[in-house]
Amino acid sequence: MSKVRLADIAKMANVSKTTVSMVLNDKNINVSEETRKNIKRIAEELNYIPDTVARSLSTKKTNILGIINPDIENPFFSEMVKAIEKKAEYYKYSIILCNSYNDYKKEEKYLKLLISKRVDGVIVLSGGKGSTAIDTLKKNKIPFVVVDRYIESEESYSGVFCDNDKGIDIGVRYLFDKGKRNIAFIRGEEELTAANLRYNAFEKTAKDLGIFNKNLVEEESFTIEGGKNSTQKLMEKKEKVDAIFYSSDVMALGGMKYLIRNGYKVPEDISVLGYDNINIASLIEPELTTIAQPIYEMGKKACELLIEMIDEQKEEKIIYLDPKLVERSTVL
Amino acid sequence: MSKVRLADIAKMANVSKTTVSMVLNDKNINVSEETRKNIKRIAEELNYIPDTVARSLSTKKTNILGIINPDIENPFFSEMVKAIEKKAEYYKYSIILCNSYNDYKKEEKYLKLLISKRVDGVIVLSGGKGSTAIDTLKKNKIPFVVVDRYIESEESYSGVFCDNDKGIDIGVRYLFDKGKRNIAFIRGEEELTAANLRYNAFEKTAKDLGIFNKNLVEEESFTIEGGKNSTQKLMEKKEKVDAIFYSSDVMALGGMKYLIRNGYKVPEDISVLGYDNINIASLIEPELTTIAQPIYEMGKKACELLIEMIDEQKEEKIIYLDPKLVERSTVL
Repeated sequence: MSKVRLADIAKMANVSKTTVSMVLNDKNINVSEETRKNIKRIAEELNYIPDTVARSLSTKKTNILGIINPDIENPFFSEMVKAIEKKAEYYKYSIILCNSYNDYKKEEKYLKLLISKRVDGVIVLSGGKGSTAIDTLKKNKIPFVVVDRYIESEESYSGVFCDNDKGIDIGVRYLFDKGKRNIAFIRGEEELTAANLRYNAFEKTAKDLGIFNKNLVEEESFTIEGGKNSTQKLMEKKEKVDAIFYSSDVMALGGMKYLIRNGYKVPEDISVLGYDNINIASLIEPELTTIAQPIYEMGKKACELLIEMIDEQKEEKIIYLDPKLVERSTVL
Repeated sequence: MSKVRLADIAKMANVSKTTVSMVLNDKNINVSEETRKNIKRIAEELNYIPDTVARSLSTKKTNILGIINPDIENPFFSEMVKAIEKKAEYYKYSIILCNSYNDYKKEEKYLKLLISKRVDGVIVLSGGKGSTAIDTLKKNKIPFVVVDRYIESEESYSGVFCDNDKGIDIGVRYLFDKGKRNIAFIRGEEELTAANLRYNAFEKTAKDLGIFNKNLVEEESFTIEGGKNSTQKLMEKKEKVDAIFYSSDVMALGGMKYLIRNGYKVPEDISVLGYDNINIASLIEPELTTIAQPIYEMGKKACELLIEMIDEQKEEKIIYLDPKLVERSTVL
């Protein structure tokens, strides 16, 4: 790297580096107004940008936050990252983006990289039960906030959560009230805590209502393919299905694709309920009825929480946000 | 920030900081095997991570790349950023993500921030004609690669492009061959070079074929809303329309939504052709026929190009990739 440096300006203005630094930082220094203007003009012309890396060595701050997310192409995470970046920029922080693909080794590797780059804090979006990554953050005393990730090994940490139990309960009861009794549930993979929480909540409410049927439960990844495959497995069982509750919208999109392709009408033959309320939910036809998580709000809150911990040394805090039903056109 | 430091390990192992540093870097130093093992064990236990910021002051390298993209929530850019991050990680670079929302002032601000953080290079994804941002990079001698952004003021720069003229020409001729004569074109906003290139290409081919009708051209932003609004404006003109060629898939999604909502059948009443081939194009029903840009490949190539410039001082280079037609179900 060979960018414009203080020394270049000093040389052109025929003054010392200290003088340039004092003038550009508007410090009190005894130089003529002419010299002052000259220095500022040169800095402007050369497009001089102060070096915050050198400065960060003394302030111990880089104003960089690390974000670990499973996959930026997943619309749930791209919306959340967008919210985080916007908040971060407002507080003059930059974000380093890492895609872990829910691979714990990768996550751990990224965290070490982020720490070596001296990020001021880290936001870990979703992902697994694994706690080695979190241990690494704790040991290195890096402030962090988790989103939708529960850590059993730690007593206190900061996190933003949207109540999974409540969201699933609302969804199952909504389908029940619509007269559905044969409700299939497509769960996420066991490695993900949110997947387990949602499934357990489904089992509980379905049992309370006396309609639980283990045979109508399928497990797959929170992806389009996962949605397609699980729906195929489910439909090939030839059981009676009134409604399918997908535990993520992305899965629901894949599932609806399978259903429509195979001659099922949604919602006339089978009702479909999603979870998350990603933007695409309202783009497809028919528009997806879903349990909304306040995705943008979750990202915003996570970023605010982290910056408060960094800049104001605030204590760890857990924030719970509420899910809500968004009725569109896939449940009859 | 108070992370585990060399001094902590030195204290616990009862040796000097230099000894710790030498041992951890596997340098030749005269210490007992026992001390060596002890130092490594302590470093492991404390989860010691070397500080690359301090190191970067001497190597002049941060191994961080800056990415300026209009909006990470736009699936075109999230797919491209994913490709860049994957390549970057392979070469041991991290990426700082910035969303400019096509605002040149914001872009300029972000660039200064990136330079102040001493990024080793910058990738600018799409965006406007504005060249002040590019000037800033040039003046600060920061290697950069643009994707789908033409710079008139510069003679040599690195870029990755997918031939807009060719893509549009393929699209118009495909619709023409399908018997369409009343082809509407939804263009992007004038501030974006790609929008102008695509429109000019449309006008040229449509005139060559003798079917150009200025009345069937609408201009809007490359967004869902832009697609909806432009389609509404178009249809309210009550002109005969056989097919609509949207110059971005995101616009086509919005447009199809408007059409379906207003009782038009796609493709029976009106054929729809998109541009980009974002992932969602194959998720909606009917699946979108579109002109595919190799989005993932463009991101990958841009990252490779940049890293070659940084690590091997390679010269500026322009890479052209080819668009191609992807036939699905929206053109009859």
